[in-house]
Amino acid sequence: MNDGKMRIIPLGGLDQIGMNITAFEYDEDIVVVDCGLAFPEDDMLGIDLVIPDTTYLEDNIDRVRALVITHGHEDHIGAIPYVLRKIPIPVYGTRLTMALVDNKLEEHELLDTTVRHVVSFGDRIRLGKIEVEFIRTNHSISDACALAITSPVGTIVHTGDFKIDYTPVFGDPIDLTRFAELGKQGVLALMCDSTNAERSGFTNSERTVGRALDTIFSDHASSRILVATFSSNVDRVQQIINTAQRYGRKVVLEGRSMRNIIKTAIDIGYVKIPEGILIDIAQIKDYPDEKTVIITTGSQGESMAALSRIATNMHKMVSIRQGDVVVFSSNPIPGNEKAVFKIINELSLKGAEVIFQDTHVSGHACQEEIKLIYTLTKPKFAIPVHGEHRHLMAQRKTAIDVGVDKDNVIILSNGAVLELDRDSARINGEVQNGAVFVDGLGVGDVGNVVLRDRQRLAEDGIVIVCMTLEPGTNIMVSGPLVMSRGFVYIKESDEFMEEARDVVIGAMEKIRDRNITSRNKIRDNIKDALSGFIWKRIKRSPMILSIIMENGE
Amino acid sequence: MNDGKMRIIPLGGLDQIGMNITAFEYDEDIVVVDCGLAFPEDDMLGIDLVIPDTTYLEDNIDRVRALVITHGHEDHIGAIPYVLRKIPIPVYGTRLTMALVDNKLEEHELLDTTVRHVVSFGDRIRLGKIEVEFIRTNHSISDACALAITSPVGTIVHTGDFKIDYTPVFGDPIDLTRFAELGKQGVLALMCDSTNAERSGFTNSERTVGRALDTIFSDHASSRILVATFSSNVDRVQQIINTAQRYGRKVVLEGRSMRNIIKTAIDIGYVKIPEGILIDIAQIKDYPDEKTVIITTGSQGESMAALSRIATNMHKMVSIRQGDVVVFSSNPIPGNEKAVFKIINELSLKGAEVIFQDTHVSGHACQEEIKLIYTLTKPKFAIPVHGEHRHLMAQRKTAIDVGVDKDNVIILSNGAVLELDRDSARINGEVQNGAVFVDGLGVGDVGNVVLRDRQRLAEDGIVIVCMTLEPGTNIMVSGPLVMSRGFVYIKESDEFMEEARDVVIGAMEKIRDRNITSRNKIRDNIKDALSGFIWKRIKRSPMILSIIMENGE
Repeated sequence: MNDGKMRIIPLGGLDQIGMNITAFEYDEDIVVVDCGLAFPEDDMLGIDLVIPDTTYLEDNIDRVRALVITHGHEDHIGAIPYVLRKIPIPVYGTRLTMALVDNKLEEHELLDTTVRHVVSFGDRIRLGKIEVEFIRTNHSISDACALAITSPVGTIVHTGDFKIDYTPVFGDPIDLTRFAELGKQGVLALMCDSTNAERSGFTNSERTVGRALDTIFSDHASSRILVATFSSNVDRVQQIINTAQRYGRKVVLEGRSMRNIIKTAIDIGYVKIPEGILIDIAQIKDYPDEKTVIITTGSQGESMAALSRIATNMHKMVSIRQGDVVVFSSNPIPGNEKAVFKIINELSLKGAEVIFQDTHVSGHACQEEIKLIYTLTKPKFAIPVHGEHRHLMAQRKTAIDVGVDKDNVIILSNGAVLELDRDSARINGEVQNGAVFVDGLGVGDVGNVVLRDRQRLAEDGIVIVCMTLEPGTNIMVSGPLVMSRGFVYIKESDEFMEEARDVVIGAMEKIRDRNITSRNKIRDNIKDALSGFIWKRIKRSPMILSIIMENGE
Repeated sequence: MNDGKMRIIPLGGLDQIGMNITAFEYDEDIVVVDCGLAFPEDDMLGIDLVIPDTTYLEDNIDRVRALVITHGHEDHIGAIPYVLRKIPIPVYGTRLTMALVDNKLEEHELLDTTVRHVVSFGDRIRLGKIEVEFIRTNHSISDACALAITSPVGTIVHTGDFKIDYTPVFGDPIDLTRFAELGKQGVLALMCDSTNAERSGFTNSERTVGRALDTIFSDHASSRILVATFSSNVDRVQQIINTAQRYGRKVVLEGRSMRNIIKTAIDIGYVKIPEGILIDIAQIKDYPDEKTVIITTGSQGESMAALSRIATNMHKMVSIRQGDVVVFSSNPIPGNEKAVFKIINELSLKGAEVIFQDTHVSGHACQEEIKLIYTLTKPKFAIPVHGEHRHLMAQRKTAIDVGVDKDNVIILSNGAVLELDRDSARINGEVQNGAVFVDGLGVGDVGNVVLRDRQRLAEDGIVIVCMTLEPGTNIMVSGPLVMSRGFVYIKESDEFMEEARDVVIGAMEKIRDRNITSRNKIRDNIKDALSGFIWKRIKRSPMILSIIMENGE
């Protein structure tokens, strides 16, 4: 559409599921920012991953110029292999981001066929009529950036996920000067991270965690120490390693993603390992407890992660001993609280001291930081992003507080098409959007019918009734057999199941009396009789599957 | 056992599941304190309720003298009907507690056959050689009490669930004087609530919530207001009603448990309703928005509760309108965060302003309150109760801080038998304990096998293969039929299912070649062939059910 308008279309990221992907369009050019996945909600039974529905981009594949990535977290890069397979476009990102993207592409055998560009802060790339500039920010992963996205209608500043850290442990503070310059030149719209928009104040500096770690190591000089944290928080892992070195301990990296991501970060020089400090987990038995630290995955209580296996004695090399100290350098992400508390209880039961106070800081900006970015960029329009509706509404309030006209704060939902020109912004239409389920190797072949079935099966199990009929008739030649799985613990020979069998036999008698021979009708009659019986007797509604075979079929 | 020892046996309450029930024994007498239920964990698929295993009490039924209840929350009274059916004993509790117990007994048709005693604070009851005294405390439900349990070896103080509220809105502050007197006379052991033992400081007074409510009502004088809270928090509901009266609003009580519990509280005079303020939900349309308040259940995001139905437009009488104000006078209980946030997003999307800051206080004591109780009672032994292991360990630390000998802090687990005499305490043995699942009308008929099946079904669904064989042979006369439920959305006619059918036919050919006729072996061979095929092709492991029928069976 050559109408001289900028269009912003979030295809994900504005709901509780949270996979981030946004299309920016001007005339014939589309630039996609981020391409994240989500982990399944509780009711998405059996699903491994959730990726965004990119039908809109596939339908406009000729116009899509590039994928630009703000930082290397899974909710921003995780869906890249799935989407690139359908929409092969060049990918742009900073050094660590692209190294993590490369790992993914390699795993999915897409490395050789994908055009990749490593950018530096300050770089500007031209993608048709859209220009994208990369601006340094701070976040819970290195090399995070904000984007200034400029088209003929003006500049849109997209913060990515960010916080303001004046005293980062490694690297530089966020480039506030550039935000100020852009503000002076004129910013049409600010798309700002909403994750912590409900929280007042200012997020603590990453440096405070280092101090807390030093105190813990100093207070527990004679214990073995385990630290659980996010493997992608490369700076955090570096801090733990530095503290270990100060206190003369060897370091083990445990958990697949911990080893992979930190190896990648070491390879590109983002983590510096003091000579001889890293040891393999198999070597840990050669060192006294007070000379070791295990940095591990599993801080979210993930049942298959290293920490969980250690806590439940299912780890090959490490188990918890009386006196161990386990530090959670993380907060539970909403939804993971119970799993995390379960592991803390396990660890505590086995005699470990568990520490989780002052050992983590958020990677997202609180209200005072958000106000600062608004104050510097002075946007005409505010478009809160990266959050659930409640977060977007909280940022709306803050934006209005610092002077954005309340009619100029735009709350988008996924799929909404926002049209911008120099003076106005309006939502005009909606494109297809949503979540695609990945289960095992299958992408999108588990739909809502299957999920509903799984929920029903999970709730009350399944009862199966099976019989063979003479072809074309309603005369039973074998069966009925009544079986169940996940229903109630009653063997087939049990009284209740015998009664259920009698109910089916009774239903078949009625079917014969009424001369019903349609297979579908017979199946339905049996199902109704059986489900009525079960509900009446024990108030349960298992799924009922009625199978009719025919001899010679 | 007439050995002059006191035995304390927690049968629940000391793990993440949290149903409270403890046996106190001296010689031939057993007194049971509390009898709670739990709501199912995420992995207890299809389970409605969880109740404690009371085999130990059933085995000693002749010695069980009474059930003494500390307060009327579900995790302390919910299992009473299930347990009384097996162990019919008298029940003791304060006025509101017993009124709520009576409701339960009536529902389960046990009211007429159960001996019930309403006690007052200060009452002492003698139950064989054990004496129980009821002491006033504060909590998030009225009429909560601590117990002084005295036997010839000494006095044990059990706090129940408590907080210290010097300025409660209704009723009196906790009877600290009595705790001090008992301390002066000598307390053998203190069993103190651990729920908030990880939190420093002092829990705010219930009164602070009233002030926050007043501010909200005053700031939103032209909006309809909904307040979601716990129906059992009778004082909270009273405060909301009082605020409504001050601001000239009519009040609707919505949700089954809200209406039931508040009705009970009104009947016994624990909630005072100003003349004409309560209206039925059907009348709400007759009043302007700014003249109404809806007090509703569902503050934990329960999907079937009133607030959830209102938020999702599934409520018959009320839906959310632009400008409504929804106050959460509650905090999410761990595990419910995501469900609560989901409702907040729904409400926010529909245009409601959602308020959840300063609108709730906990009902449990923080560290400074715990210290006060220890300081007054000066117990020889400390037995932290009511909490997960991490909470018990946190209280342990506090107990040691205020002077309890660290060897005298005893961390129990469910089922442990603690033997106490005047000078010593030791754990001696363990009795049967655990969780019994209630699913529909069935108690205990869903066991771990069924749960494992449900988890498997939930994960990947079920594939069913069905065939009829000539009696005694391996000759197929009908089938194979391959069907699935909850697996992947592929119809039976689909290519994949056709291939699966071919795999079964192939397996049957091998079975004939090898002259296998054992039904079990045939079933296993088919299962192995099919699961191997499915795993290889799509990396999934559905449950596989292989059904063999025989003609003439």
